[in-house]
Amino acid sequence: MMVAPATALGIDLLLFAQSAEDSGAQITHHVVGDYTDLEALKKFAEECDVVTFEHELVPLSVIKGLEATGVKVYPPSSAFIYSQDKAQMREKLSSFPSPTWKVVTSTADIDRYPLIAKAISGGYDGRGVWKINSQDELGEVLKTTPQLLIEELISFDTEISVMVARSPHGQATSWTPTETVQEDGICTMTISPAQSISAELAEKAQKIALDIAQEVGVIGVMAVEMFVKGEHLYINELAMRPHNSGHWTIDGAVTSQFEQHLRAILDLPLGDPSMTADFAVMGNILGGEKSDMYRPYLHLMARNPDLKFHHYKKEVRAGRKIGHVTAVGSDLLQLTTDVQHARDYMSGVIDE
Amino acid sequence: MMVAPATALGIDLLLFAQSAEDSGAQITHHVVGDYTDLEALKKFAEECDVVTFEHELVPLSVIKGLEATGVKVYPPSSAFIYSQDKAQMREKLSSFPSPTWKVVTSTADIDRYPLIAKAISGGYDGRGVWKINSQDELGEVLKTTPQLLIEELISFDTEISVMVARSPHGQATSWTPTETVQEDGICTMTISPAQSISAELAEKAQKIALDIAQEVGVIGVMAVEMFVKGEHLYINELAMRPHNSGHWTIDGAVTSQFEQHLRAILDLPLGDPSMTADFAVMGNILGGEKSDMYRPYLHLMARNPDLKFHHYKKEVRAGRKIGHVTAVGSDLLQLTTDVQHARDYMSGVIDE
Repeated sequence: MMVAPATALGIDLLLFAQSAEDSGAQITHHVVGDYTDLEALKKFAEECDVVTFEHELVPLSVIKGLEATGVKVYPPSSAFIYSQDKAQMREKLSSFPSPTWKVVTSTADIDRYPLIAKAISGGYDGRGVWKINSQDELGEVLKTTPQLLIEELISFDTEISVMVARSPHGQATSWTPTETVQEDGICTMTISPAQSISAELAEKAQKIALDIAQEVGVIGVMAVEMFVKGEHLYINELAMRPHNSGHWTIDGAVTSQFEQHLRAILDLPLGDPSMTADFAVMGNILGGEKSDMYRPYLHLMARNPDLKFHHYKKEVRAGRKIGHVTAVGSDLLQLTTDVQHARDYMSGVIDE
Repeated sequence: MMVAPATALGIDLLLFAQSAEDSGAQITHHVVGDYTDLEALKKFAEECDVVTFEHELVPLSVIKGLEATGVKVYPPSSAFIYSQDKAQMREKLSSFPSPTWKVVTSTADIDRYPLIAKAISGGYDGRGVWKINSQDELGEVLKTTPQLLIEELISFDTEISVMVARSPHGQATSWTPTETVQEDGICTMTISPAQSISAELAEKAQKIALDIAQEVGVIGVMAVEMFVKGEHLYINELAMRPHNSGHWTIDGAVTSQFEQHLRAILDLPLGDPSMTADFAVMGNILGGEKSDMYRPYLHLMARNPDLKFHHYKKEVRAGRKIGHVTAVGSDLLQLTTDVQHARDYMSGVIDE
């Protein structure tokens, strides 16, 4: 999804991919290699003006190694640490509203259950996060993950994500807070603007996200995921790259998160983040029983000519995110109905 | 500009390019060859489900040769002839409002001047079109172009373009009529919806364009360029491919002409052509004295965060279309001012 804005802005992309079959590799110039291999990355970086990421898995030591040779990496390791290491993030953002937390290696003195436990690094899409109901359960998880960040379980009303962008000289923008609808730890749908928060809380959430961006020194886009309980916000997670909760911006904002990320890391003036319609609803399409998406496409295109499809060119596997759809407009009920229908239809929940 | 919607829809593109340096070749899988070489095209077509065009220069005999081997070519030669051969187009569309016309090989009996003369095929971007003021001038042009289509010179109030799309089973859509602002035979800016025509005339223009689409049997998108004089319309030219007068649709319509062309030629249900804002203004950027566009980019991005840039990755040469910019919104005067400023700035008319 970075290819479209890169092309429009006249920016050349070179992808460092794990395999030539990667969805990104199929549509852009690429080099194949192991992202933990510093020498391979140095060679790759020789052809680049700026290097950036699309996931959190590149080891910090490798990023620092690149930076040490003079490669411009955005976001820099000094910021990226806070998206890779959840405990350091909690420490850094202690002045921001957050759940109470603690790093533990044993169950000793932990007596308030249920709680949330997280692997300090490496988790994504719900992995490496557990809801723990008892000391015994905590003990079990510690066997496989000896160091855990445990957090107060917030019985939130809703989850939101605020995406922001920040450039090297400090210019920053924020998109409207977005509600992320979750099922089993995976986001199924997003609604923008988030409907269940007041205007004051929405403004507060954006300000918090922009302050965090400055605090951690991110360059590029960042998603700040938050819990909402009444009029209170709690920082949940940070992701310093284009994020699922920002996909709606492709069709629903003047400047998409992908375009903004490019502008930010290249120190170009940031684009307008305003919405282009009253509402934008995005639905994640997970692979279901069907491996052939053609007939569902035909059905949905005919039913909803205004639905925008985003196909990830990934092999269809059950439960795997294979794409997303977005609908924008003025009738939120209609949009959510259409997107939910599309989700159900594409995953085979509704049979033909 | 086809790459973005193709990627989003999960469609693979293979480009038959004249050179690996072609702007399209830089961003998509391609084969290099001569588009007049039927054997080369047959080989290329073996890897394609559908073949289409982005210009009118592929010889009809070559297209027919491809079709004869069973290759699905859209638009088909039976329709494409009417965009390649202006005389056949006039004959075919004789029931539609048009300037009076005649094919001539001499100046004999031509006594009404000034008139418009056109090479019957091969012209584009103002080439192969002459305004002829006298019999002597006509004689001069006939020396180099022995067969000419001559047409009544319409002293029009404005020029518009109506873009439509048509699929193999006859589904068709139309975008709003667009005013094409011309200078020296080249379009500098487009305004959508066209402001200087009444609602009735706009509706009539769209109906005419859709009827023409059906009459010629086009599959894919088509631009129907018309002159407007009072409440009268006159068909000027047809182009059966994504057209300059439809570039605004990328940022200003739910479905862009590029996405719609793909849907149409693949017989997918057509997308919604509605506008996403009240107005869309597009400006063509021509190369000027500057060869380095970087500083102008910075200036314009900072001045207008809502301006959308489309860079063609072409070497900057004076007078050459190197890209376009689009602004959409509710204040037409502001949009046209911003786009004109961008045009002037990028071409060096305004110095830094």
